[in-house]
Order: sequence, then C-alpha cells, then structure tokens
Amino acid sequence: MPHGRPLQVPDDGMTTRARRNTPVLAVHTGAGKGKSTAAFGMALRAWNAGLNIAVFQFVKSAKWKVGEEAVFRHLGRLHDEHGVGGPVEWHKMGAGWSWSRKRGDEHDHAAAAADGWAEIARRLAAQRHDFYVLDEFTYPLKWGWVDVDDVLARLRNRPGRQHVVITGRDAPPALVQAADLVTEMAKIKHPMDAGRKGQKGIEW
Amino acid sequence: MPHGRPLQVPDDGMTTRARRNTPVLAVHTGAGKGKSTAAFGMALRAWNAGLNIAVFQFVKSAKWKVGEEAVFRHLGRLHDEHGVGGPVEWHKMGAGWSWSRKRGDEHDHAAAAADGWAEIARRLAAQRHDFYVLDEFTYPLKWGWVDVDDVLARLRNRPGRQHVVITGRDAPPALVQAADLVTEMAKIKHPMDAGRKGQKGIEW
Repeated sequence: MPHGRPLQVPDDGMTTRARRNTPVLAVHTGAGKGKSTAAFGMALRAWNAGLNIAVFQFVKSAKWKVGEEAVFRHLGRLHDEHGVGGPVEWHKMGAGWSWSRKRGDEHDHAAAAADGWAEIARRLAAQRHDFYVLDEFTYPLKWGWVDVDDVLARLRNRPGRQHVVITGRDAPPALVQAADLVTEMAKIKHPMDAGRKGQKGIEW
Repeated sequence: MPHGRPLQVPDDGMTTRARRNTPVLAVHTGAGKGKSTAAFGMALRAWNAGLNIAVFQFVKSAKWKVGEEAVFRHLGRLHDEHGVGGPVEWHKMGAGWSWSRKRGDEHDHAAAAADGWAEIARRLAAQRHDFYVLDEFTYPLKWGWVDVDDVLARLRNRPGRQHVVITGRDAPPALVQAADLVTEMAKIKHPMDAGRKGQKGIEW
C-alpha cells in the first residue's frame, strides 16, 4: 500500500509543485486482462477531479466495451446536467469516428486509425482535453498504420498539462521508454483457457 | 484484441449456458499499478449490467481512493433515483466499518479486518450482492489476520452467482490456485521512482 512519498527527490531544478503538475504519459501493456479496464478506472478518478475526459477507442467493432461507454455517458450527463465531475467525450473507430464524414469506407481500418491519430494530435495541440485514453492504440502503432516517431514527438511536445493513457499489447519499446508510468498486465490465468465464455457484467 | 471465443470446450459435462453463468473469482496481484483500478473498472461494467455491487476496502486510511468512492456513490444514486445500473454499497475499514458499532478501537486493524471478512462471509452465504470487490484484501491474508483456508472454503462454497474480485500484492498461492482469473500487474516504470509526487486526478 504505497502512499505518495517519492523515494528520492530528483536533481532536476524543478520545484515540487512543478513536478507535481507534470502531465503523465501512462502505458498499460502485456497479455493479461485489465489494461483498458485500469485505464477507464484512471479516467473515473480524473472525471471525479473535474478533468475533461476524452476516450478514443481504436477498435474494429463498435460492440466492444459498451458497458464502460454507457457508464461514461452517464457520468458525462451528470457533469452536463448537475455540474458534477468533468465533461466526457467517447469516440470509437468502429464504423467510423463520430467527427468524420468518411462513413462509407468503414473497412479501411488503417486509414481510420490514421484519421483518429490526426484528430488526437490536433486536440493535443489545442489543449482540448485534460485526460486522454487511447484505448488499444498500440495495435495501429504495431501494424505501422500510425507512425510511432510522430506519436512520440507530438506527445513529447504537447502543451500544458494533458494526461495520456495508452493501452494494448506489445507497446513499442520507444513508447515504453518515453512513458512516465508503465504497467505490464501479465496473464497468470484466464477463465477462457478453461473453455468458459465471456459473460455479461464481467467481460462486457 | 481477444473476443469471447474459448480456445477449447472443456469436457466437464456442463452446458455452455451453465458454464457462462459460472461465477468468477478474480485476483489482481503484483507490484505494479492498476490492481484496484482495474477491479473498480470491472465493477463499472457490472454496475452497467445491473448487478448489485459491494466494495469492501481493507485499507487503514479512510482517505484512500476517495475519487473512486465518490464516483460509485454517484452511480449508486443514479440507480436509486433513476433506475439505471445496479445498486452500490461502498464500505471501508478506515476508521471502522460502517455497519460496525465498534468505532472506538480503530487502531486494532487485525480485529477490524477479521470483522470485515466475517461480514462478507455472511453476505456471501445470504447472496446479498452480485459483485464483490475485496480491495487490498491480500494484506490481511498475508499478515494472518484472516485465515486463508476459511476464505477459500467460503468462496468455493458460495451459493448462486456471486462474482468476487480480490486485489493486493503477494496474493497467497492457494488463492491464485483457486481463482478463475488472475492478472499480475508488474511495475515497469513509475513516476514516483523519478521523484514525482502523486497528483490529484491521477493518483487519487
């Protein structure tokens, strides 16, 4: 049960306050469960602190993670109608990003992923949100659909105090290198190994 | 991006439906971040599916994880007032369990942990909830405050379809053995290693 006490104070010339306000780049990778789930859990906490939340899901199917999406839509409404927590946007690649007019060619996942990243890069430059979840974003990086160097440069140079959490297996080494917080979710045991199917409320 | 397709169908005489409805015992362990956060993320999904949620935090300080608690209290109200999602109860050991009258002796953490488990055991027997988070519960097990064999026996024999998620470092081997889903959160990199302090919206 670690608490917020650093092991050492770095000799980086920053004040504690400046260091405390440094934006975080977090990566959840590994073959185990909980990568996205923990990212959404972080977003919960950020929402509660009043941060402006944006989730971008780089998934092919619009049916995935509908449970989390539904909850965050409730939270977004709580903000909009009752001033509680922060505002929430939830975008998914699925059948085309919500901001995009290119809805016809929903099978070109590579182009859709590149469009998604281009939009995120614009929003980072404009400081549009406080907390970004780029869910399953390691896959377009891995498959070369989005350029890792471009991502790292834009993340490194993002202005202000914008936190970013990236999830997915096989995070590129350069991304792990660049991140402040990296957790590997390792699979020790999974019910599907025993032939069980996913079930409502647990898997989705 | 695995989907809900089992690798093999087990020869256990169960129908797919029965297997799908098997309650899950999940363990999040390891030295990395995200153990509790992923458990609360699972609880989000369960809440959205209308399950009855109960969180029991085996923490000494009442100040920990107040962000998550605040969000789940909002979700509980959404259920109570608008019939959305499931009901939520959130209990923490902190300065004494909410159901307990023993508020005087808040420094006897061993007794408080044993009281907490005794209450959970009663609720499991009564099928009071659908989804239990036993947050940081590995510590009282590790320190011998709660008997591992008793926990395993009661979990094994719990009636109905009650899902249980247990978090914390150093999960006892027998618990890992008994669990259906085990993820180890391994610490690859953490900002506090670089001397940063925790910050609002990120760490709490």
